[in-house]
Amino acid sequence: MMRTRPLKVALLGCGVVGSEVARIMTTHADDLAARIGAPVELAGVAVRRTGKVREGIDPALVTTDATALVKRGDIDVVVEVIGGIEPARTLITAAFEHGASVVSANKALLAQDGAALHAAAGEHGRDLYYEAAVAGAIPLIRPLRESLAGDKVNRVLGIVNGTTNFILDKMDSTGAGYQEALDEATALGYAEADPTADVEGFDAAAKAAILAGIAFHTRVRLDDVYREGMTEVTAADFRSAKEMGCTIKLLAICERSKDGTSVTARVHPAMIPLSHPLASVRGAYNAVFVESDAAGQLMFYGPGAGGSPTASAVLGDLVAVCRNRLNGTTGPGESAYADLTVSPMGEVVTRYHISLDVADKPGVLAQVATVFAEHGVSIDTVRQQGKDGEASLVVVTHRASDASLSGTVEALRKLDTVRGVASIMRVEGE
Amino acid sequence: MMRTRPLKVALLGCGVVGSEVARIMTTHADDLAARIGAPVELAGVAVRRTGKVREGIDPALVTTDATALVKRGDIDVVVEVIGGIEPARTLITAAFEHGASVVSANKALLAQDGAALHAAAGEHGRDLYYEAAVAGAIPLIRPLRESLAGDKVNRVLGIVNGTTNFILDKMDSTGAGYQEALDEATALGYAEADPTADVEGFDAAAKAAILAGIAFHTRVRLDDVYREGMTEVTAADFRSAKEMGCTIKLLAICERSKDGTSVTARVHPAMIPLSHPLASVRGAYNAVFVESDAAGQLMFYGPGAGGSPTASAVLGDLVAVCRNRLNGTTGPGESAYADLTVSPMGEVVTRYHISLDVADKPGVLAQVATVFAEHGVSIDTVRQQGKDGEASLVVVTHRASDASLSGTVEALRKLDTVRGVASIMRVEGE
Ligand SMILES: NC(=O)c1ccc[n+]([C@@H]2O[C@H](COP(=O)([O-])OP(=O)(O)OC[C@H]3O[C@@H](n4cnc5c(N)ncnc54)[C@H](OP(=O)(O)O)[C@@H]3O)[C@@H](O)[C@H]2O)c1
Ligand SMILES: NC(=O)c1ccc[n+]([C@@H]2O[C@H](COP(=O)([O-])OP(=O)(O)OC[C@H]3O[C@@H](n4cnc5c(N)ncnc54)[C@H](OP(=O)(O)O)[C@@H]3O)[C@@H](O)[C@H]2O)c1
Repeated sequence: MMRTRPLKVALLGCGVVGSEVARIMTTHADDLAARIGAPVELAGVAVRRTGKVREGIDPALVTTDATALVKRGDIDVVVEVIGGIEPARTLITAAFEHGASVVSANKALLAQDGAALHAAAGEHGRDLYYEAAVAGAIPLIRPLRESLAGDKVNRVLGIVNGTTNFILDKMDSTGAGYQEALDEATALGYAEADPTADVEGFDAAAKAAILAGIAFHTRVRLDDVYREGMTEVTAADFRSAKEMGCTIKLLAICERSKDGTSVTARVHPAMIPLSHPLASVRGAYNAVFVESDAAGQLMFYGPGAGGSPTASAVLGDLVAVCRNRLNGTTGPGESAYADLTVSPMGEVVTRYHISLDVADKPGVLAQVATVFAEHGVSIDTVRQQGKDGEASLVVVTHRASDASLSGTVEALRKLDTVRGVASIMRVEGE
Repeated sequence: MMRTRPLKVALLGCGVVGSEVARIMTTHADDLAARIGAPVELAGVAVRRTGKVREGIDPALVTTDATALVKRGDIDVVVEVIGGIEPARTLITAAFEHGASVVSANKALLAQDGAALHAAAGEHGRDLYYEAAVAGAIPLIRPLRESLAGDKVNRVLGIVNGTTNFILDKMDSTGAGYQEALDEATALGYAEADPTADVEGFDAAAKAAILAGIAFHTRVRLDDVYREGMTEVTAADFRSAKEMGCTIKLLAICERSKDGTSVTARVHPAMIPLSHPLASVRGAYNAVFVESDAAGQLMFYGPGAGGSPTASAVLGDLVAVCRNRLNGTTGPGESAYADLTVSPMGEVVTRYHISLDVADKPGVLAQVATVFAEHGVSIDTVRQQGKDGEASLVVVTHRASDASLSGTVEALRKLDTVRGVASIMRVEGE
């Protein structure tokens, strides 16, 4: 029993993702109609430049006036794939005000203003879906929000940025340095001309904020996420990692504290054992581990970006939002009832791999060990290598708080016998 | 804004899964209420034996009259975790008739009677959810039905039975034979006293039928699924697999034909390359690959069974069904509009690994090769090993239809120089 009046969709943005959304809406129109229970019609496409040829898109639908499009009043669903904060935020808000539901792929905006956008959606009784904003095609938001709705999630740990994983994978497999691997990623189209958002961890931090909020039913702002990029990771770090049976990944880690009352969210490079499933995530792929009380350990793996994978996620949301609309209902909105404290990085507890350049003379190890002990950081293993009066000391710690570790490092730097702290890397996934 | 009248849940079955469902409903009552928007109340628990002590469950709620419980008329959701065909089927049907929605973990029943149960749910405007029926805690039904609703799934390939994966993993890592590995699985509680449903592939076949139906939007009956157990897999097969850089897994494979008009579903042991992510799925874990047009390759991994993981999936469904109920709506029902043909096993195209015992004399290889050629099965590699007039021939084919391969094997058996066909194993995941 098919309703005949089509649902009208306004597409904001027709770039890498938007053009694929439009293509699939056209080529799979019959399937979409059957799955939704009504046909969906592309009612307008907002872009910045009119001149560009847009294959498969009726030029009559194309406009540069996105505002007028969302305010038309007959739009059922607005798909926002422009990206960035403005004008996306204003357009989405206007969409709700004019009665439309919204599907977005915009992690930056959701991480920064998710709460306000959810409030606007709720106020107008509309849906805001954004599966595509985290890890592209990989279903993550829906599993966290719905499949695990009866469970208690304690940890989300994953590779959520394909560009940096491509670079780190290259460094790992070829021994290349950061710059060389980045150049290759750029040449192959895996890194943008300005790779800052990826390599400095901003993109992953936005995703971590979104994931932590949904996983823990609390609000996690972008500023709450500790962020460290991967531009300082060296070929030497990879050699150290290999000696430990590890590799290095840029991880997004969201954790609930043991007592359950607070959470942390962070993005940084970390060593993980080669035996960990995340260690074998190659190239630009993404993978996310979710650990919960009842389900135990789940992993979700797939392409984390790209026009067509991201469009797959957008269209899944589009179908859901359209169905809700036909049923006169909305899906689960923001769930932030738990209202947990977001603790600062200092309270994060993990293990560390520290390389020190030290003087090669008796008593140095004892001095260094004393500093660790004074700061309550317990040492797991130490490896000492020396030649010609110079030596290096590699210390791997047991679990300790980030604050204790920082204190330790600060004190180490003040020792006469410590020439320098060559690297500090967290060790995860054990 | 919390509604105060609680939603009433009837629990049918309080065994491995049911007792965990009851436990979590009690211990996580506040979280469930917050996520649903109303409290949920355990209104009754139906079991077979009254005598048994059921920890944490109010004895006043326990009944052996499941029929009376589902017919009470005030039940909002029936959770069926009894298992088997009857009385589960009659109880679920009665639940719909008396106005309840249903959450079930019953793969056997869903695979056999899914269509009729969906019809009953639809007729009464109620929900039928069953995430727990396939791969325990791993979100699979919801991602296929909702996240990928805007995509075209072409293939589902996975390990969906933990018992058999445990046994095969043991055989692989220790060189043990089937019986020895089964005995260990039984001793450790991974295999039931009567392991038939698992080792003969019945359990996996039920899951394949459910997955294929949802993935391809068509009806796939249990009888449509080709099924071969893993009781014939030998230590020698594992040695052959290793020589090929492979291991052996019991796989459920659902595929759409190239032209898109038909599908196949099958369960059988197969060799897969060690480099394939499914090869490293250890112990009783499950993992499922989903390949679609736009999303590409996704993988879902986690515990495929166990009381608490399965309860996690049941509770996720319970939350969804309760929300729908509060919203006066239902989730997506059965989607079988595509109405595709299910092709028989003969039309499945894959690669094969065949071990033959042959006479060690000149011309045998030429004879064997001729038989393959006559049946249109192209050979990839042949390895010949001989001593004392006896020899073995290992043939790995290119892709060929199952019918052609069967014809080839039949003809090979008739050759005087072929003493026996030692093993035939499909090769997947390449
Ligand atoms: N690309 C991916 O792999 C990926 C993956 C996950 C999520 N996302 C997210 O998806 C969103 C879109 O990404 P994308 O890669 O498709 O970006 P893109 O290729 O740069 O496309 C952006 C589109 O928005 C249009 N646009 C820009 N400013 C506009 C304005 N003021 N008014 C109307 N239209 C405007 C552009 O118009 P013109 O065509 O005229 O330039 C273009 O069509 C972003 O939020 C991104 O984070 C992308
Ligand atoms: N166990 C798993 O890991 C797992 C994983 C995925 C899916 N599942 C599915 O979940 C379902 C339940 O499995 P399970 O392992 O929990 O089974 P189970 O431990 O054998 O429990 C079955 C429960 O049903 C009750 N029962 C049996 N016949 C009944 C009847 N006629 N009327 C009322 N109650 C009756 C039993 O009562 P008594 O307690 O009095 O014996 C028992 O409480 C099955 O469909 C199974 O396929 C199980």
